Amino acid sequence: MKRLWDKGEPLDQRVLRYTAGEDHTLDNRLIHYDVLASIAHAKMLCEESLLSKKDFEAICDGLEKLEIAYKNNEWKISLEDEDVHTALEKKLTEAIGDAGKRIHLGRSRNDQVLAALRLYLIDASIALEKSAIQLAKSLDKLANRNLDLPLPGYTHMQQAMPSSVELWAKAYANEIKDDALGLAQTRRRISKNPLGSAAGFGTPGLNTDREKTRISLGFETVQEPVTSVQLSRGKAEAGLVFELCLLLQDLGKLATDLLLYYTKEFAFITLPENMTTGSSIMPQKRNPDVLELVRGATGTINAALSEILGITSKLSSGYHRDLQRIKAPLFRAIDLADDSVEIMQHLIKDVNFRKENIKLDESIFATEKANQLVINEGISFRDAYLRIAKKLKKK
Amino acid sequence: MKRLWDKGEPLDQRVLRYTAGEDHTLDNRLIHYDVLASIAHAKMLCEESLLSKKDFEAICDGLEKLEIAYKNNEWKISLEDEDVHTALEKKLTEAIGDAGKRIHLGRSRNDQVLAALRLYLIDASIALEKSAIQLAKSLDKLANRNLDLPLPGYTHMQQAMPSSVELWAKAYANEIKDDALGLAQTRRRISKNPLGSAAGFGTPGLNTDREKTRISLGFETVQEPVTSVQLSRGKAEAGLVFELCLLLQDLGKLATDLLLYYTKEFAFITLPENMTTGSSIMPQKRNPDVLELVRGATGTINAALSEILGITSKLSSGYHRDLQRIKAPLFRAIDLADDSVEIMQHLIKDVNFRKENIKLDESIFATEKANQLVINEGISFRDAYLRIAKKLKKK
Amino acid sequence: MKRLWDKGEPLDQRVLRYTAGEDHTLDNRLIHYDVLASIAHAKMLCEESLLSKKDFEAICDGLEKLEIAYKNNEWKISLEDEDVHTALEKKLTEAIGDAGKRIHLGRSRNDQVLAALRLYLIDASIALEKSAIQLAKSLDKLANRNLDLPLPGYTHMQQAMPSSVELWAKAYANEIKDDALGLAQTRRRISKNPLGSAAGFGTPGLNTDREKTRISLGFETVQEPVTSVQLSRGKAEAGLVFELCLLLQDLGKLATDLLLYYTKEFAFITLPENMTTGSSIMPQKRNPDVLELVRGATGTINAALSEILGITSKLSSGYHRDLQRIKAPLFRAIDLADDSVEIMQHLIKDVNFRKENIKLDESIFATEKANQLVINEGISFRDAYLRIAKKLKKK
Amino acid sequence: MKRLWDKGEPLDQRVLRYTAGEDHTLDNRLIHYDVLASIAHAKMLCEESLLSKKDFEAICDGLEKLEIAYKNNEWKISLEDEDVHTALEKKLTEAIGDAGKRIHLGRSRNDQVLAALRLYLIDASIALEKSAIQLAKSLDKLANRNLDLPLPGYTHMQQAMPSSVELWAKAYANEIKDDALGLAQTRRRISKNPLGSAAGFGTPGLNTDREKTRISLGFETVQEPVTSVQLSRGKAEAGLVFELCLLLQDLGKLATDLLLYYTKEFAFITLPENMTTGSSIMPQKRNPDVLELVRGATGTINAALSEILGITSKLSSGYHRDLQRIKAPLFRAIDLADDSVEIMQHLIKDVNFRKENIKLDESIFATEKANQLVINEGISFRDAYLRIAKKLKKK
Repeated sequence: MKRLWDKGEPLDQRVLRYTAGEDHTLDNRLIHYDVLASIAHAKMLCEESLLSKKDFEAICDGLEKLEIAYKNNEWKISLEDEDVHTALEKKLTEAIGDAGKRIHLGRSRNDQVLAALRLYLIDASIALEKSAIQLAKSLDKLANRNLDLPLPGYTHMQQAMPSSVELWAKAYANEIKDDALGLAQTRRRISKNPLGSAAGFGTPGLNTDREKTRISLGFETVQEPVTSVQLSRGKAEAGLVFELCLLLQDLGKLATDLLLYYTKEFAFITLPENMTTGSSIMPQKRNPDVLELVRGATGTINAALSEILGITSKLSSGYHRDLQRIKAPLFRAIDLADDSVEIMQHLIKDVNFRKENIKLDESIFATEKANQLVINEGISFRDAYLRIAKKLKKK
Repeated sequence: MKRLWDKGEPLDQRVLRYTAGEDHTLDNRLIHYDVLASIAHAKMLCEESLLSKKDFEAICDGLEKLEIAYKNNEWKISLEDEDVHTALEKKLTEAIGDAGKRIHLGRSRNDQVLAALRLYLIDASIALEKSAIQLAKSLDKLANRNLDLPLPGYTHMQQAMPSSVELWAKAYANEIKDDALGLAQTRRRISKNPLGSAAGFGTPGLNTDREKTRISLGFETVQEPVTSVQLSRGKAEAGLVFELCLLLQDLGKLATDLLLYYTKEFAFITLPENMTTGSSIMPQKRNPDVLELVRGATGTINAALSEILGITSKLSSGYHRDLQRIKAPLFRAIDLADDSVEIMQHLIKDVNFRKENIKLDESIFATEKANQLVINEGISFRDAYLRIAKKLKKK
Repeated sequence: MKRLWDKGEPLDQRVLRYTAGEDHTLDNRLIHYDVLASIAHAKMLCEESLLSKKDFEAICDGLEKLEIAYKNNEWKISLEDEDVHTALEKKLTEAIGDAGKRIHLGRSRNDQVLAALRLYLIDASIALEKSAIQLAKSLDKLANRNLDLPLPGYTHMQQAMPSSVELWAKAYANEIKDDALGLAQTRRRISKNPLGSAAGFGTPGLNTDREKTRISLGFETVQEPVTSVQLSRGKAEAGLVFELCLLLQDLGKLATDLLLYYTKEFAFITLPENMTTGSSIMPQKRNPDVLELVRGATGTINAALSEILGITSKLSSGYHRDLQRIKAPLFRAIDLADDSVEIMQHLIKDVNFRKENIKLDESIFATEKANQLVINEGISFRDAYLRIAKKLKKK
Repeated sequence: MKRLWDKGEPLDQRVLRYTAGEDHTLDNRLIHYDVLASIAHAKMLCEESLLSKKDFEAICDGLEKLEIAYKNNEWKISLEDEDVHTALEKKLTEAIGDAGKRIHLGRSRNDQVLAALRLYLIDASIALEKSAIQLAKSLDKLANRNLDLPLPGYTHMQQAMPSSVELWAKAYANEIKDDALGLAQTRRRISKNPLGSAAGFGTPGLNTDREKTRISLGFETVQEPVTSVQLSRGKAEAGLVFELCLLLQDLGKLATDLLLYYTKEFAFITLPENMTTGSSIMPQKRNPDVLELVRGATGTINAALSEILGITSKLSSGYHRDLQRIKAPLFRAIDLADDSVEIMQHLIKDVNFRKENIKLDESIFATEKANQLVINEGISFRDAYLRIAKKLKKK
């Protein structure tokens, strides 16, 4: 993995490594989706009489076997394969002969990669949405476990108004449900069929049918015109990552609150022991590492969004190889969100509020008192405010 | 405006300037919306018997007069006012006396600022959506003006497949319409009534009715629980700016294409003279500054999004003064998008394609020829591809 | 300022506003430096016999008078002037006639704007460096005022090891001094003479002498070759803003610590009253707004850096109008850093540690005890660690 | 690697995976440096009579053998090891017994990780500096190979003034040398000895000597006070990555120029065949993928800088686990820069300018003509400019 000093590699190998990048590793998660999209494409070719029934069946069978073999760890995408698409076409042709060479008619890697990627993103967004809702439910349960427990309501990190564990936890539950809704909305941009746009300008001289592959794959719409497909690269991706930024920001704030409540000085909560770790030098420490890593995750995911926007910005229309660089931050963001939501869901289950340590400062009721002055004496709120303020100052 | 060396200012003035920041300038656009929201709030107070009918009428009348006076340039928010909310309450009380002191019952600047801001963002998102659609229509017209004009389709900036001005322009039109749809979707997060959440924890001891202000102001939902309101700060704002990033990215790519086509070496287009500027030293130059500034705008708007996400990240729940810093990048992004879309719409109207200069390289038809080989001879696409490639290499 | 709905402006005015942008406002701080650079340029022209002595004197005199008039508020750069350079040449020619038309020989706005900007940045970096050192000294004084006061040393926000106010304050003092060193280092990139590169390709047919203007203006080097000047746009600017990011990050962390210590639950410090502000609804509140705004400033300044890097990224060589967009984030970052450092310096003077409230948990001495076991009994540190850990668990 | 759906893992394993993150993979490059730093630490302990000579020798021997074994692929850091530091201490103790348990006296992972990391960063910055200089030399050679070849000088992407391949290439050479200087400057912040600060607050009850480890390891200074060490986390790292941003930005611009020159419409250059790749569908294509990936690399590296700044921002003083997240973007940035500089160096060697295709527009000499008018006729530059402009307009 280290390259800084061992410069012995032959040049062609270096060019391959530089251009293929991490694709051979990243693309493993796309194998299933590339198989799906390739079968849908082959089916359409067959229906349009561009592929014989026999070849179509050989292709289906071959691709499905390759996927099973992959799941059984019988092969992996190698650097020499460059990416999932090349790997599958090569292995398919090795397995079924001439029919394998017919699969790429009427498509290009440019629309092929997008078809697989978008199918993956639809599944990923659904999975993340579900995880988020599950976390929100854990927070609702936390609220319900602590129904009558008061908590200071803070503004400016100062005790401000009376609040409760219920109000605190339900705010997070509600915002995380809102993030889940946001994730669902991003599928509007993802669910567009790119197949048939080929390199970005359609398939001259071929009667391909984009509606057929749309139906096979369950995309909501066909992306039209064909030139729109490459022009839109990165937009759906950025849209998903943006929503994950909001989700992880909510998690980061939740972590910040819990880290504060877990300090010795607040001591509002205990954390489950399996969510804390020890120190290499300080025998007494139980550190809330999970929460700190969740807080730190916002830095990483915000940057993943910047990265995607930075890669696509200012490019001219049409495909550019720069776009390959989107995959790394996209998958990084998805995995980080997936892991963080899941770990927080486990953690939240066992957060325990220490009733005995939660103390509301008396001054926290000042606004309520001012409100009562208004109700009882009919004076204006501003006058009531000033009267209470004067009283407090005297103390 | 410069402060680097004139340190003579008294300390209290500096603290005021540091804490109020640019609010007194930025908030002018919020006056209309703060008046609307304040009237809705007063109406609710009146209906809940927390304000007399007479006082309510005085407040309405006073606020409306203040707005008219503002439109007539009779006053502005000053640094001493700090912000629009303080300015209006102060001026209202000066104008109508004791009734003015009653307007702030059951609200805090924390929910008040959000009410005004969200009403503004709804209008802004609608206006931007309309502008975007208008620009898309200009692109559709450009396509229709050049219906039969071929254009090379580029991948990797190389001539790749035959395309057309129509396909080129309609891709942009389509993507910008998609951006407009995205802008409409952001209103889901914006259109939530914050009023009644006060400082973030509701209005203890007062029967306020959040549904009433929701109806008055046309918000889609009441944001519940009250603690959700401050926790969500920056999310709707970031959502809008994210969509503007995609919109400006599409404009930036359009600018990049046009800048390329406007080079002497491509010479595919002429630009309207009023959209180009001269040089201070080179008498011959007509520079496409507008397009360059549109391209550069992506750098600015992407950073505005990062800024908002950076400000809200890692904060604990509840209001923090940090959140005030959101306003500057938010308004900067909105104004930049508004101006850029508008100027591009004017420019697109007069972009003229120079048919005589647009030349498609012969090799651009290679894929079509390979496709024909498949159709005519029944060979596989991969074999057809190799045969054409060999032929081209010989030349 | 608002443009969203009043679209009545004539087109040429809009184009002017879009292309000139905020320059007419931003450039006021450059007047002094443009005068300096213009005089140095005229002096060189005169020495190279490209300008008569009389014209040179008229130019000097004219420019100096214009600067004085500006300082006396007799004129400002208007939108119609576009920028400082056009404004000065125009006003100079109005004032002194034909000689004014001779000042632009052998230069372009491209090198002219950079000369003024870099002279300004040198002064700004020196001023900021001094302010930072002053703030560091305030922190050293704070340390010295609290020499024997213990403070818990925190890791993971948990009490970890015994520390002291002195160690705490001196860490910040030291890091801020390091930031000041960083600011000084940025002058290596700033202090390069751009004059003589004109539009970016030198001054064909003219004997201009770049070394002469370098000496007049005090730049460290002449930037060679001429094509390097525009290629490097944004690098020195980004370098300065990067150092300001580190400086404001240190300030933001200082603010975070103080905000924590100022909570009721920690209650380690009091803040000077003039650095806190009241609430519009809660009569009891004294809010640490200054500290929150300093913390929030990191979001703004990190984004200013991204903005500059985003604007210059991927441009081809040679001047582009996109580069004009650098000025806004650059000045925003400088002003924000300048104000934040200054306000913190005032605040730090009056931070008061509340000795009575600072309590070190007994377990904080566990590492010291383990160390003593090693010294006294000769056992290994890992065994000592385990023994202490077991003892603590029993309690 | 995919985790989205296989949620079968036991919880403790997940927590371990979440907290250890990628460290076990990332840390392999640190093994050499952790061995160096551990030996220096043990030597100091021995000299301070905190470790017997015999134990010290066993530790040295043990660590060196472990490093050799690692180089021979006999072991790797596993997830269960968590990180390089735990792995080494564990394996050392397995190998040499009780002496291994004595190595951690007077240090913590907090200072240990920084020592190894900083030693690595010093080497990495030197290696990158050298690579950059080598690339600059390749550009100088390119200039020298094309000494008399004119090239249009562009501003606003328009032909502006006469330039040359030499001036073009030397601008890049010069800026990349400037980046190398910047890399050297970053070592000021890197080269500070963190050892002896332990968890961030020193080593109570032990006579450790920080100057001794500084000398052993070649750090320029001891970082004082001890509390400064953790407070400064991320600053040196961000400093290095910032300089890499400027370096990759220069490479990205170089790539942008070459991509433009490589278009059929410019056709100024040919590229070496091994630096271009084919298309999956278009048999005729030779795509400049390497250049596109270099251009796209700016998006990735700018985001890595944002990520680091985002992770450290707003943290309170003292160590936080969030800081672990710095390693991934830091190593990502270093590897990306390292690979990109190297590949560009190979590419530049074989860039060939196509003299026959490079045409300067006649109007490019307009400024020179205006300059000549000034010299020959003594009129002002502004009048000469207007006269030439009028003449050009007539044509």
